[in-house]
Amino acid sequence: MGALTKQAVILLSGGLDSTTTLAIARHAGFALYAMTFRYGQRHAREVEAARRIAQRMGVVEHRLCDIDLRQFGGSALTDDLEVPTARAPQEIGAGIPVTYVPARNTIFLAYALAWAETLGTGDIFLGVNALDYSGYPDCRPAYIAAFQTLANLATKGAVEGTCPVTIHTPLIDWTKAQIIRRGLELGVDYALTTSCYAPPADDLACGRCDACLLRLRGFTANHVTDPIRYATHSP
Amino acid sequence: MGALTKQAVILLSGGLDSTTTLAIARHAGFALYAMTFRYGQRHAREVEAARRIAQRMGVVEHRLCDIDLRQFGGSALTDDLEVPTARAPQEIGAGIPVTYVPARNTIFLAYALAWAETLGTGDIFLGVNALDYSGYPDCRPAYIAAFQTLANLATKGAVEGTCPVTIHTPLIDWTKAQIIRRGLELGVDYALTTSCYAPPADDLACGRCDACLLRLRGFTANHVTDPIRYATHSP
Repeated sequence: MGALTKQAVILLSGGLDSTTTLAIARHAGFALYAMTFRYGQRHAREVEAARRIAQRMGVVEHRLCDIDLRQFGGSALTDDLEVPTARAPQEIGAGIPVTYVPARNTIFLAYALAWAETLGTGDIFLGVNALDYSGYPDCRPAYIAAFQTLANLATKGAVEGTCPVTIHTPLIDWTKAQIIRRGLELGVDYALTTSCYAPPADDLACGRCDACLLRLRGFTANHVTDPIRYATHSP
Repeated sequence: MGALTKQAVILLSGGLDSTTTLAIARHAGFALYAMTFRYGQRHAREVEAARRIAQRMGVVEHRLCDIDLRQFGGSALTDDLEVPTARAPQEIGAGIPVTYVPARNTIFLAYALAWAETLGTGDIFLGVNALDYSGYPDCRPAYIAAFQTLANLATKGAVEGTCPVTIHTPLIDWTKAQIIRRGLELGVDYALTTSCYAPPADDLACGRCDACLLRLRGFTANHVTDPIRYATHSP
């Protein structure tokens, strides 16, 4: 990578959305610095997926950050609450789901900002989506805009005017079908990604949780078969 | 503590400012949940000071959070850059100092927000001061206001209207002399606190770095002797 290449920090979870975002950022010409958090989530396979994706999609540097969000509790993704399954489309996104993690995106973006500042870039990519996951307060456009405002007051480079911060959220108002369509156009191998909230085994998605249902419907809308393996599903 | 007691999360560094802030929050009737970060700073004694202060000043719960800011570099507090010493008053606060840690307050406040949300409170206390440390972008009132705006878009309780977030920064426009005066009124034992950026030995402050100089001038302005031990100083 030459010195003139634009650099960007991207938050990479190993899921479908962040992987598509990575492909979009790469297509836009950014040299990518990917950041994945181990935060006591129950499925280390997300981290493994992120690692494979980073290797296969040519990121310059991939950092794994250990943070302990379990101590704050309050989420089915880090606690032992039951993950809801087999919900109808109109139920998904109604209210704030139990899979919500307190202040998660605020913590993740704060780390991304620290790394971006050290790299000397202001470009940060985040694969949030307000349409399919409208229940999460920190996935909405107003939240992202507020973080960008904060970031431009927080860092030396932004305050001195040499390095303004932009939080890129290309997927924010796309449907899951649109996300998958764009990813397929850009050659994303979705077999590398993992989305399930409650996988019954390694390399197997449940096919019944909100994340599986949204994903399956997105592939169906594109008349494409999801390349990952499911235990059961009714698409 | 009864169920009706107001709870607050407070960021406690073990320094003079955060300890005074703790005394102010306690005086205002809050039950205190203190949070201290171990972030690769060179002086574990800050953490020990925070622990003693939490015990002595009656905090309900004190959490130590390990985060690794060393990986981002860029600061004399976590790297091996030279800490400036013996600077004149007009030099201190001119420009952003090398002791600046990338995105530090953004990361700290994000963690505080996560804990506050889990506790079910929106009150967060932070001992930032814009006057004596104007070189830090994330200590200014505009930054704090932006974080409060962000927080009120980020959390379930704030979005649902049950738990609006307030970032309390009682010291933000006080001089160091005013901070010390208020702390003494509230009975703070400043012998418990530590401020020095470059301590030459345990329980000894250098007396020459910016933090020592500001602290010493603050005590001198109050005609009070700073109870901590210094290696050398010219007040």
